[in-house]
Amino acid sequence: MGNRERIIEETRALMNEHGAASIGTTQIVEALKISPGNLYYHFKNKEEIIRILFDDVERALHELLTADIEIPISAARFAGFYLRSLEVVWDNRFFYGGLLQLLRKDEELAERYRKVQAETIDGLEGLARQFVKDGNMEKPRGRNGFRSVALNTWLVWTNWIRYKQTMSPTQLVTREDLAEGVGQIFDVLTPYLDPDFERAARRVLARELSAGSADG
Amino acid sequence: MGNRERIIEETRALMNEHGAASIGTTQIVEALKISPGNLYYHFKNKEEIIRILFDDVERALHELLTADIEIPISAARFAGFYLRSLEVVWDNRFFYGGLLQLLRKDEELAERYRKVQAETIDGLEGLARQFVKDGNMEKPRGRNGFRSVALNTWLVWTNWIRYKQTMSPTQLVTREDLAEGVGQIFDVLTPYLDPDFERAARRVLARELSAGSADG
Repeated sequence: MGNRERIIEETRALMNEHGAASIGTTQIVEALKISPGNLYYHFKNKEEIIRILFDDVERALHELLTADIEIPISAARFAGFYLRSLEVVWDNRFFYGGLLQLLRKDEELAERYRKVQAETIDGLEGLARQFVKDGNMEKPRGRNGFRSVALNTWLVWTNWIRYKQTMSPTQLVTREDLAEGVGQIFDVLTPYLDPDFERAARRVLARELSAGSADG
Repeated sequence: MGNRERIIEETRALMNEHGAASIGTTQIVEALKISPGNLYYHFKNKEEIIRILFDDVERALHELLTADIEIPISAARFAGFYLRSLEVVWDNRFFYGGLLQLLRKDEELAERYRKVQAETIDGLEGLARQFVKDGNMEKPRGRNGFRSVALNTWLVWTNWIRYKQTMSPTQLVTREDLAEGVGQIFDVLTPYLDPDFERAARRVLARELSAGSADG
């Protein structure tokens, strides 16, 4: 791994642990034992590194929603989707933790975020419509039922990790917290899901989670 | 209003507009046109003002959950509760926006937050159980159905404003956004609510929202 990559990865790790606001270029070069000049050779400032880190968030969300989906969507695919969605937030928890402040400081980043957020919520709405078409879910109640479940899915998805962090004195989150979070996302749709489909999805989830390693 | 009160209110207003991280004692004294010595006569530092602002959040959450509730809980009471809950977040959006960073910097605040958050989620669970006892809601599905709807209610409640802020280039939120947010909170329970009860609650909500003044 070259210095450029090492700087990017170290920044993500430090910010995930301490929050984006607490980490500047000083902390990054100290952690890597490189000179400030070395960092500035690769990056103009902290904001530039954050934009590069956001490329990954963008790509991950995009991949989640555009990956080839076999129709009808299987219970395994359903479980995998929501598990992966929460992993994206976990891997980039510095971003969702410091969200408003990061967007305030960088209008370009804010615009990119608005775009990918809107696309992802549209994607979640499309998925919900597909579950209904597949016969695995009832139409959600209310005038804007599909939109509403998409929005609530997104709110639980993007805020679960932050919630868990606030509940822990160390702000650390475990693999079990992730499992609980996927369960909470499922529960936005639970009332409308076919019970057999839901049970199958929860079985897949339990299996995938027990296969994954513990993460701190 | 004495200087102490003016400092507290100005801090809340500035932080709500610009975020807690962007506001220090310098910005506060400049906005009020007072001397730094005047501020330091009343407060040791910014953290002390934030703790005092958090007293209000704590009190508002406590009042929400312990106010005399006539049983059975009426649709009007139900609507009023969720509207008020979102108003608390709106009035203190600096707090929910900068949450992780604020808690990281002040262990005492973090502990107080954990306590009131846990109590509020317990309270939401109690409310859901009461709606079922009152015959206005079905038991939520799943092994931990009551807990799960309480958690998802809390996640939508505390993150709706932040979501809306990220969607606006100015991070401003309107009274209509608040109405939409209450609708989203309702929708965590919608699948289980008695349709007549739900319709009555939405009517009350629409009335209260059209009576309230626009807020920017």
